[in-house]
Amino acid sequence: MSVLPAPGTISFARGIPSPDMFPIDALAQSARRAVENAGRVALNYGPPAGFGPLREWLGARHGVAPDRVIVTPGSLIGLNFVVAHLFRDGGTAIVEAPTYDRVIGALATAGADVATIDNTADGLDLDRLRELAAGNPKPKLLYVLPTFHNPTGRTLTLAQRHELVAIAVEHDLLVVEDDPYGLLRIDGERQPYVHELLRDAGGEHLAIFASSFSKSVAPGLRVGYLVLPEELVAPFEALATRTYVSPPLLPQAQLLDFLESGSFEPHLEFLAAFLRPRRDALLERLDADLSGLAEWTRPEGGYFLWLELPAHVDTTELNATAVAAGISFVPGAGFFAGGRGHNTARLSFSFPSVDEIEEGAHRLTALVRETLDR
Amino acid sequence: MSVLPAPGTISFARGIPSPDMFPIDALAQSARRAVENAGRVALNYGPPAGFGPLREWLGARHGVAPDRVIVTPGSLIGLNFVVAHLFRDGGTAIVEAPTYDRVIGALATAGADVATIDNTADGLDLDRLRELAAGNPKPKLLYVLPTFHNPTGRTLTLAQRHELVAIAVEHDLLVVEDDPYGLLRIDGERQPYVHELLRDAGGEHLAIFASSFSKSVAPGLRVGYLVLPEELVAPFEALATRTYVSPPLLPQAQLLDFLESGSFEPHLEFLAAFLRPRRDALLERLDADLSGLAEWTRPEGGYFLWLELPAHVDTTELNATAVAAGISFVPGAGFFAGGRGHNTARLSFSFPSVDEIEEGAHRLTALVRETLDR
Repeated sequence: MSVLPAPGTISFARGIPSPDMFPIDALAQSARRAVENAGRVALNYGPPAGFGPLREWLGARHGVAPDRVIVTPGSLIGLNFVVAHLFRDGGTAIVEAPTYDRVIGALATAGADVATIDNTADGLDLDRLRELAAGNPKPKLLYVLPTFHNPTGRTLTLAQRHELVAIAVEHDLLVVEDDPYGLLRIDGERQPYVHELLRDAGGEHLAIFASSFSKSVAPGLRVGYLVLPEELVAPFEALATRTYVSPPLLPQAQLLDFLESGSFEPHLEFLAAFLRPRRDALLERLDADLSGLAEWTRPEGGYFLWLELPAHVDTTELNATAVAAGISFVPGAGFFAGGRGHNTARLSFSFPSVDEIEEGAHRLTALVRETLDR
Repeated sequence: MSVLPAPGTISFARGIPSPDMFPIDALAQSARRAVENAGRVALNYGPPAGFGPLREWLGARHGVAPDRVIVTPGSLIGLNFVVAHLFRDGGTAIVEAPTYDRVIGALATAGADVATIDNTADGLDLDRLRELAAGNPKPKLLYVLPTFHNPTGRTLTLAQRHELVAIAVEHDLLVVEDDPYGLLRIDGERQPYVHELLRDAGGEHLAIFASSFSKSVAPGLRVGYLVLPEELVAPFEALATRTYVSPPLLPQAQLLDFLESGSFEPHLEFLAAFLRPRRDALLERLDADLSGLAEWTRPEGGYFLWLELPAHVDTTELNATAVAAGISFVPGAGFFAGGRGHNTARLSFSFPSVDEIEEGAHRLTALVRETLDR
């Protein structure tokens, strides 16, 4: 068991939205309207791939046929379907180091072999990707989070996106692009999706796109989705059927009402305005107190930044001290398949208030300086 | 692919509610109120076992601590957790013949060995259960649907419930009681749950209860639940976390608002009144046209009745003819682990209207008589 947090603990650990980010009033109306207008369909069982009109909305948004969209109760279960289907007979997955910890867990459960490519301040190690993609036996997929990466907050440059796509096409490598945070852009310029570039390069059959409305609207709806190559649709529908018959159609209809009400784009602007002062407060304190002592990312959006401390610091040990001092974060080691990153940490700025972030960051930098002085 | 149904096909196949069974107006209000009153919690991520206040409501209803209740997105995924957890290292499951086809599928996927006990007009074959329960290695569980059984519509007598419980306690056999239809009683007297009798007999640790609001309120909410022995709670929470982080909390909060609004009990009475003329119309036609030629059950509730034709009739072949004649049903063979029941069929009376049932039953009995005359 972990140490009990002190009263008034400020959490940089929880990668979840603040309740102040939810569009309560608009969703309350959408929730009612969807039952009234679509209830006879959305209250029943239905297609394993989800609520038809939402699949159409998503297909139009991504420029694909709606039947290539599978809506799942959150995107994790969709990623679990990807892993269960592709690694049912074993095989190798390429993931970033670091990467989303639950996918590391899913690959381990499935018994997949995992190879890693470093994600650092210099970008993705695409030379290593090229080497791995040419390997024999051929890796079954590359799993990447190109935009506002979890845990680092980094965004892949356009040049690297193009290079990644060229490697995938050359080596016929399936790319799973996970994008739960992409719509939460605070500043900087939107990059094209990797799956869009793959399509342009004739590699549409090599792209799986995973996303979700958990970060852009509300996780309690549990609406995630996959855009699949055509040949994977039928096996994924079969997986969905035998896992849960059909997904919860009602929250999908409620979400669609919200999306079509004209509230979505303004809400994304609200989220950017909500996250900006939180990210900035955290960066300001790190800049003021830790320059030259540690390194951290400067995310253009999403929930996370990534802190790298000198090699002799162990963030798992530091976190135990931190909790006693009234703050918490996620030690970075869990985001590495195969044990590295002992000196790294993920800091989430989505949950605490600006005041809490200022106070929490102050506690954090004091603790780090104290640790480094020892 | 199956034969395309004729236009105007009347389906006795679909085990789903008619949209006329949904309490649209009350749910529309509950949907809105839950967002307004509980949205700050229910729109977020939360406990893997579901929305706390709904777990409390269910715990109170079943007389157990709320933390023994795991709310899942539909009950099938909960049953899949049971199978995945208990058969991760193989083992034997005892199921009824016939039984719910998706559980047969889940056990097959898990690689479990399956032993069967007959469910017939004489009840469950409890002598066979006693024999199997004493087997070595010990079976890991007995899976039963004691009330308005799927596919037969039968209900286990009180005497057989007591005997089943005595066998389970004597042989330390885990009993999974699946009860999706129990609240849909049209007539007859309510029987105590098997897990209640197990508790009374000192076998509380031997009971898993699975149920759902898919039949009593609406499947599009996807709210199912398990009541677990204490020692299974932590592993099932871990399974839920790695499958979907947390389940859709919003529809759980919306359902709870409905349950607490005073609309639930009247709605159950409405459902009984809705199903009664449908069941009766089907029985009347069978009584009038097929007496002495076939046998069928007389369910006191639920969605299904079970038709047994003479041994030389193959219902899979008959169904192909039936579809061309404008009706459909589910051939019974799929409900038997290991291929029997070729002359049986499940008829659902929940989806068509009374008029459709009268017309469809007329088509069905004509077809059966024609087949028997050949």
